Amino acid sequence: MTIHEIAEWLGGKVVGNNIESAPDIERVAKIEEADSGSLTFLANPKYEKHLGTTHATAVLVSRKLDLKKNVGRASLIFIRVDDPYVAFLHVLKHITPTVELFATGIHSTAIVPSNAIMGKNISIGSHAVIGEHAIIGDNTKIGVGCVIGNHAQVGSECILYPNVVVYHQCKIGNRVILHAGAVIGSDGFGFAPKADGTYEKIPQLGIVVIDDDVEIGANTTIDRATIGDTHIHCGAKIDNLVQIAHNVVIGEHTVIAAQTGISGSTKIGKHCMLAGQVGIAGHIEIADRTVIMAQSGIPKSIGEPGKSYFGTPADEARKAQRVYIAMKMLPDMLREFTALQKKVAELERKLLEK
Amino acid sequence: MTIHEIAEWLGGKVVGNNIESAPDIERVAKIEEADSGSLTFLANPKYEKHLGTTHATAVLVSRKLDLKKNVGRASLIFIRVDDPYVAFLHVLKHITPTVELFATGIHSTAIVPSNAIMGKNISIGSHAVIGEHAIIGDNTKIGVGCVIGNHAQVGSECILYPNVVVYHQCKIGNRVILHAGAVIGSDGFGFAPKADGTYEKIPQLGIVVIDDDVEIGANTTIDRATIGDTHIHCGAKIDNLVQIAHNVVIGEHTVIAAQTGISGSTKIGKHCMLAGQVGIAGHIEIADRTVIMAQSGIPKSIGEPGKSYFGTPADEARKAQRVYIAMKMLPDMLREFTALQKKVAELERKLLEK
Amino acid sequence: MTIHEIAEWLGGKVVGNNIESAPDIERVAKIEEADSGSLTFLANPKYEKHLGTTHATAVLVSRKLDLKKNVGRASLIFIRVDDPYVAFLHVLKHITPTVELFATGIHSTAIVPSNAIMGKNISIGSHAVIGEHAIIGDNTKIGVGCVIGNHAQVGSECILYPNVVVYHQCKIGNRVILHAGAVIGSDGFGFAPKADGTYEKIPQLGIVVIDDDVEIGANTTIDRATIGDTHIHCGAKIDNLVQIAHNVVIGEHTVIAAQTGISGSTKIGKHCMLAGQVGIAGHIEIADRTVIMAQSGIPKSIGEPGKSYFGTPADEARKAQRVYIAMKMLPDMLREFTALQKKVAELERKLLEK
Repeated sequence: MTIHEIAEWLGGKVVGNNIESAPDIERVAKIEEADSGSLTFLANPKYEKHLGTTHATAVLVSRKLDLKKNVGRASLIFIRVDDPYVAFLHVLKHITPTVELFATGIHSTAIVPSNAIMGKNISIGSHAVIGEHAIIGDNTKIGVGCVIGNHAQVGSECILYPNVVVYHQCKIGNRVILHAGAVIGSDGFGFAPKADGTYEKIPQLGIVVIDDDVEIGANTTIDRATIGDTHIHCGAKIDNLVQIAHNVVIGEHTVIAAQTGISGSTKIGKHCMLAGQVGIAGHIEIADRTVIMAQSGIPKSIGEPGKSYFGTPADEARKAQRVYIAMKMLPDMLREFTALQKKVAELERKLLEK
Repeated sequence: MTIHEIAEWLGGKVVGNNIESAPDIERVAKIEEADSGSLTFLANPKYEKHLGTTHATAVLVSRKLDLKKNVGRASLIFIRVDDPYVAFLHVLKHITPTVELFATGIHSTAIVPSNAIMGKNISIGSHAVIGEHAIIGDNTKIGVGCVIGNHAQVGSECILYPNVVVYHQCKIGNRVILHAGAVIGSDGFGFAPKADGTYEKIPQLGIVVIDDDVEIGANTTIDRATIGDTHIHCGAKIDNLVQIAHNVVIGEHTVIAAQTGISGSTKIGKHCMLAGQVGIAGHIEIADRTVIMAQSGIPKSIGEPGKSYFGTPADEARKAQRVYIAMKMLPDMLREFTALQKKVAELERKLLEK
Repeated sequence: MTIHEIAEWLGGKVVGNNIESAPDIERVAKIEEADSGSLTFLANPKYEKHLGTTHATAVLVSRKLDLKKNVGRASLIFIRVDDPYVAFLHVLKHITPTVELFATGIHSTAIVPSNAIMGKNISIGSHAVIGEHAIIGDNTKIGVGCVIGNHAQVGSECILYPNVVVYHQCKIGNRVILHAGAVIGSDGFGFAPKADGTYEKIPQLGIVVIDDDVEIGANTTIDRATIGDTHIHCGAKIDNLVQIAHNVVIGEHTVIAAQTGISGSTKIGKHCMLAGQVGIAGHIEIADRTVIMAQSGIPKSIGEPGKSYFGTPADEARKAQRVYIAMKMLPDMLREFTALQKKVAELERKLLEK
């Protein structure tokens, strides 16, 4: 590709001299290893020093980078983009020979009942099973061994990796990615205690609804609602081994890292970030743009949007950090406290003597 | 259904006037939305105010509700039951057109060896694989893609959702529900350290035994014993993504929420409640009716039954909560402590001057 | 087997009288239940008292056991080995009639493309699917329903239990054991935030490399690298439901217990031991032989090898334990602190009066 083709494709702006005479880009490389014909990138300021010595033909840089102080080699060409690292990965992906993951068409061992409605240009992997009356959208790829329940719906341009299970009646939007082993729509964990100490199963009659552009990690589990729906709103990204209980709502563009668990009927706002191994109690609400740090436990609702939380039970991050710093001083302080108690007793005695 | 039919079916008691002239129940609805022909329920006291205005034909109420102070509409009919919400869900389930999840019979793509013993009226989903000499009880439904190991046993009236794996020789009782992706009988995590710092695998020769009326969540893992068995006793309910290590015993009617992990050889008593993300050390015993709050870590045995625990390492909940409240006061207290130290030093100086 | 055969097979040393006239070993048993023809073991010192009364023909004992003070029955024969319990399990395994878990050959329902390279003497279970251009080594057993991606490689003498998914291009060494439902090579969790608060998926172009003699637990997930590889070095043992993020490196012979999560680009040293439910932050390094106790959270690099850590955020175990002990004294100390403040104020008043 020529530099202009790459820049146009990335929506970037070319800066430099003699661009027409520059060689075409044939590969990508790290800035210290790049040679003529290579495209590289500069994302971390500590690599700026390499601009003067790199043999790369072109460098992806931030639109905000001050090029005056980074003179570089006279013939070095810059392509200004929003995020040089992401742009680099896109070029790398583009020029990497791709492995075709999904064969076209419906494999002869896949099972598709005649009452299922199948979109155009879909791929159904070997041994995948589509439920009765299920609906699969255009250009969607269903991996090997996936199971789509009866009356379930999967939108268009989705990718389901192998062995995903979507239970009956659940509804999945467009451009959704589900990684291997994810389970969508298992029964919520609901049991009514009986007088004799045993439990009666509460029927779980609702479904899971996953909106457009959601990605769900490997072996993550999302339970169906008791009544109504467990709802993952558009653009949410959920990592591996996450537990989403029944009737939970996850807001738009909220990101949830691995091994986090959300208890039943809790509502997480939009644009939140939950780090790994977080636990959230049931029947509470978390405001938009809340950030929850790793391993925190949230016992009650968070009403004010845009704040960070840490600890179990969690507190505002700044407060919690002060507590954790104080905790480390506690053993020394206890010793000093005992010493101070003795000193005060001594003072009392002396005062009495006077 | 008539009101009398519903009451009889639920084991409830009808209270009201002109019951014979009441319309049949045709649907269920929330108390504020119910109309003639609707059944509704009252579980939460804050909804009692709706009793005076609801258009429902009948209301499921607790046997303990004082109906004198809740006069309601003159023609309103009450059905007294133990748990109005659960009763409501049962009626809802009864009148909801059901999706048949499991086709009858053995699918042509399922693999059933001739030496397996298959009960009456069973369902084996497509691509499911039954092991050599396995035994499946009457009326049991094995979902799509399930794998039942050689010599394994599954009782009668069980439901196995898709892609469950039961390893060889494991034994599952009657009316057991296993959700999608659950793994029963994987090797316990046992390795003997060798002098050179590497590990030798300890053979895991035991099995998993799951008793009657147990429910196991999606993607939960239960390891087989080293020798003997990992045993889940009757009526236990285990949520999604739970880890049960080798040789663990879970007592009858104990409930374990999502992402909790029980280390090897630990014995959990009967009627315990373990909340989400709890961790329990190995080789300990937890007394009956113990309650363990979310994210707690239990490092040693709990001998006295019926108590609540919280924290890592956990303490009795009341003690632990006092500690957590005190922790939040710690940064302020440290500041005051330094001030007090100065004040005492000043007193000492003054006393010396006198 | 004769006692000499067992000793030779275990690499042990026989000690005792009249060994030639001893009966052959026909079974194994606990020391208190063993009879003539039985082999038993002594691992825990508190069972030494049984040496005088056991009817066993032979006892596996440690090479370090002082036999002079444990006279035992005159005809009792000892086999000295490194680890009597492990040796016992090996004999038990040897004499236990084994269930053949994997049928020989390629099942007729398995799918193996003609361009895949298949080793000698392999087993491919029913409904397993091998990817295009995949390579499977000699004597490897691929369980029912496993999915091996396009261009993926699995070495020789591996065991993959049912429903394992290995994504495209990932490379697995020799003698690797993958338990049911494990997912190797799912996309790393990488999204670039955009100006409008939505996210763009960062392509995950790398792979997972698993070296020889690794064991991976059930439903564990290991993400592929963004570029390069997520690398599990030789001899590492990873339990169930563990999350290994993209570009993580796990050192040789490191052991990771269930439900632990390692964030992206973190490098764990050799011979480390991570207990259950541990969380490790991203982009950090953990020194060799580090021990991390259960439920701990590690926010930053650990540079010094061979130390133990505990807590969230974690501290050296000895320090952390002092803090936890001090914490429990905190509520009482707060009360005493308030009393001391009053006492000092009183002293100040009295001093002023004088």
